[in-house]
Amino acid sequence: MKFIYTPASPFARKVLVAAHEAGIAGRLQLVEQAVSPVARNPEVAARNPLAKVPVLELDDGTPLYDSRVIVAYLAELPGAASIMPPGAQRWPALRLHALADGLLDAAVLLRYETALRPVALRWPEWIDGQMGKVRAALDSIEADAAALQGPATVERIAVACALGYLDFRFAGEDWRCGRPGAAAFYEAFSQRPSMKATAPA
Amino acid sequence: MKFIYTPASPFARKVLVAAHEAGIAGRLQLVEQAVSPVARNPEVAARNPLAKVPVLELDDGTPLYDSRVIVAYLAELPGAASIMPPGAQRWPALRLHALADGLLDAAVLLRYETALRPVALRWPEWIDGQMGKVRAALDSIEADAAALQGPATVERIAVACALGYLDFRFAGEDWRCGRPGAAAFYEAFSQRPSMKATAPA
Repeated sequence: MKFIYTPASPFARKVLVAAHEAGIAGRLQLVEQAVSPVARNPEVAARNPLAKVPVLELDDGTPLYDSRVIVAYLAELPGAASIMPPGAQRWPALRLHALADGLLDAAVLLRYETALRPVALRWPEWIDGQMGKVRAALDSIEADAAALQGPATVERIAVACALGYLDFRFAGEDWRCGRPGAAAFYEAFSQRPSMKATAPA
Repeated sequence: MKFIYTPASPFARKVLVAAHEAGIAGRLQLVEQAVSPVARNPEVAARNPLAKVPVLELDDGTPLYDSRVIVAYLAELPGAASIMPPGAQRWPALRLHALADGLLDAAVLLRYETALRPVALRWPEWIDGQMGKVRAALDSIEADAAALQGPATVERIAVACALGYLDFRFAGEDWRCGRPGAAAFYEAFSQRPSMKATAPA
């Protein structure tokens, strides 16, 4: 299977960490591609019309996306170690995964607004609104920090990749301040080989 | 269960259509809320830190989001008619659902850029990039129009709601032109009671 990704993408990293935790990362042939919302990459667009990464290309050429679909697919491969939360914990875990993805959606939009869009066209209210989503998501993660304790299942992987992305792209935003539970989780989780193997440069 | 939504949200409509098709829409107490990416709605934010709709509030007060998580939850309720694609069709169906969601992500960002953001701060390259995603997604849906034939499962519901959103917000974009398969699908699907009951005003 080919995994089309960019190392800076937190959604791609989430998939890669999940693959490592499931013990199947070695089955992925990594294909690095650069993507931008204002310049379609034809190699990516040929597999995903949205021109986004990550994309998983199966051996028969079938592409799969988005990151949640790929993670669900990898989790069901023969020989994959369990990375999905068990029955009763499924719904809060899926919600936490969605929260981490939503935090990242806001953070990525912030990145586009503050690093890609011409300076004269930036909108302070938009920046405040998206940053408000990021901070409220962090507060919610902190308020339910008990949910971060347990095996390295997808929702915890998603949270860890979201926190790692903030360190990577928003180093000036001290997300640890006032959030000791989330900080302690990330401190420990980021030591896992899966996280070390996938850290953006 | 309370369903917190706004009628103009295509993601909320997708959930409502799915609930109608599963025969459980009557179990949802509809709670209408207005949302904006630049003004947090406290009623919504109290349930979803991302301050987005839709949110499903279970009878014990537990909130669930985002739309994919809610649809998956509703699909497993006792008495719900099947709205999930069967085994072998699962992966292409999940991909199609993700494609429809990604089309909508781009369309909603376009809406924010062209209707909400101050005129002087709009960025033509961003508009072109997001519109490119919408059009390429439509072309992909057309190229695999055979996948639109079959029961009203979530991926077809998602596509129908995406096409309906384009009619609602982008009437000037003639998405039917050159896409007879998608147009015929929508013409028929939009006659379903589930779609008629949920059409935005």
